[in-house]
Amino acid sequence: MFKLYYWPTIPGRGEFVRLILEDVGADYIDVVRLPETEGGGVDALRIQLETSDHFAPPFLKDGETTISQTPLIMDYLGARYGLTPSDEGERRDAMRLSLLLADFLVEAHDVHHPLAKEFYYEGQRDEAQRRAPSFRDIRIPKFFSYFERLLQSNGYLVGDACSHVEFSLFQITEGMRYAFPKTMSRLELDYPSVTALRDRIAARPGIAGYLASDRRIPFNEHGIFRHYPELDA
Amino acid sequence: MFKLYYWPTIPGRGEFVRLILEDVGADYIDVVRLPETEGGGVDALRIQLETSDHFAPPFLKDGETTISQTPLIMDYLGARYGLTPSDEGERRDAMRLSLLLADFLVEAHDVHHPLAKEFYYEGQRDEAQRRAPSFRDIRIPKFFSYFERLLQSNGYLVGDACSHVEFSLFQITEGMRYAFPKTMSRLELDYPSVTALRDRIAARPGIAGYLASDRRIPFNEHGIFRHYPELDA
Repeated sequence: MFKLYYWPTIPGRGEFVRLILEDVGADYIDVVRLPETEGGGVDALRIQLETSDHFAPPFLKDGETTISQTPLIMDYLGARYGLTPSDEGERRDAMRLSLLLADFLVEAHDVHHPLAKEFYYEGQRDEAQRRAPSFRDIRIPKFFSYFERLLQSNGYLVGDACSHVEFSLFQITEGMRYAFPKTMSRLELDYPSVTALRDRIAARPGIAGYLASDRRIPFNEHGIFRHYPELDA
Repeated sequence: MFKLYYWPTIPGRGEFVRLILEDVGADYIDVVRLPETEGGGVDALRIQLETSDHFAPPFLKDGETTISQTPLIMDYLGARYGLTPSDEGERRDAMRLSLLLADFLVEAHDVHHPLAKEFYYEGQRDEAQRRAPSFRDIRIPKFFSYFERLLQSNGYLVGDACSHVEFSLFQITEGMRYAFPKTMSRLELDYPSVTALRDRIAARPGIAGYLASDRRIPFNEHGIFRHYPELDA
């Protein structure tokens, strides 16, 4: 029985963890989304933040073990469920790509918050509009073309099987489609293998059922991926 | 014999790797800093970028193995030289903190480049001045107070010995002192354990010799940590 602690109203980084848990059919509780009367609510998250040595959610608890930093949680769950390569070099490679996707996630957030996490979007909209073109025209193609090249030469991102990092690329593709629909509909034509990976993950039985459930939190304008039409192409 | 590939004129992320290599007295070549006639120069880095599957430097080559993403290089070298905990949970903890410091590094860069990596500072100075206060007043204290608390309760950042992540915190403390001297001279009074860790690392024989050598690239205004007085308190 795993316990996941993450902000309850956005997909955010917690969603990467949920995808693995749902794909493998793991027994888990999404603690903060429980009613307060059942020990949930943001107070449950606040207590974890205050009483653990960890810096920021998502937190995954597995008995007495608490893990934070999304790539480390993915590696940990993947090792348990056959989604982390057993070969040491390939395992490091999956982690390396997971870290790269985490970097991209920061950029996908900062494009709408160039001045500070602590301010509202509306207070930095002008700056966001100045940042967006280089994100759209340089950064998005740089990341996706890199993953496209890996997929075209290897079939999988790492080794000869699906690994946790493919779930992360799925989620980032979904998030980017939500946040930048015009840009992505244009760019994705150049990344057929990324699109195929997205479809392959979405069709996995555990994922297909999950995506159709109300456990899947929709993207929205409080999260990392936000749709502001003025930032799209 | 290790080969390090990184931009030759800035400390940047490569410096974290150098600190480990120098501390343990490893046999290594800082390839890109060699003269072109000896196979160095930025062309050597460009060739690595074009011919490897890796996304961005630093790259560490150990025979046929190439590693990128600074936290993974630190973990790899640490495992070789006794600076990565052998206990699985502690090893993950060192990696977790290394990822957190990597996140902080991005913020320390983006404070002077809030709009885009691709533009010059001078073109985003006004926005940088709007971003700097929340970095100084909220983010810097949040990070350093977290590490201070860990050090006060444990003595070391992880387990009961020095690990690779302490070298990373050393380097970030040095970089922040360079970039934000006024802010840091004020804030560091609240973080005596961080300062003590900085001094402890600086006094290690391999590090003390290295810091006094011309192999140590000075911080400058082309790197991640830049001193722009208008961004300091």
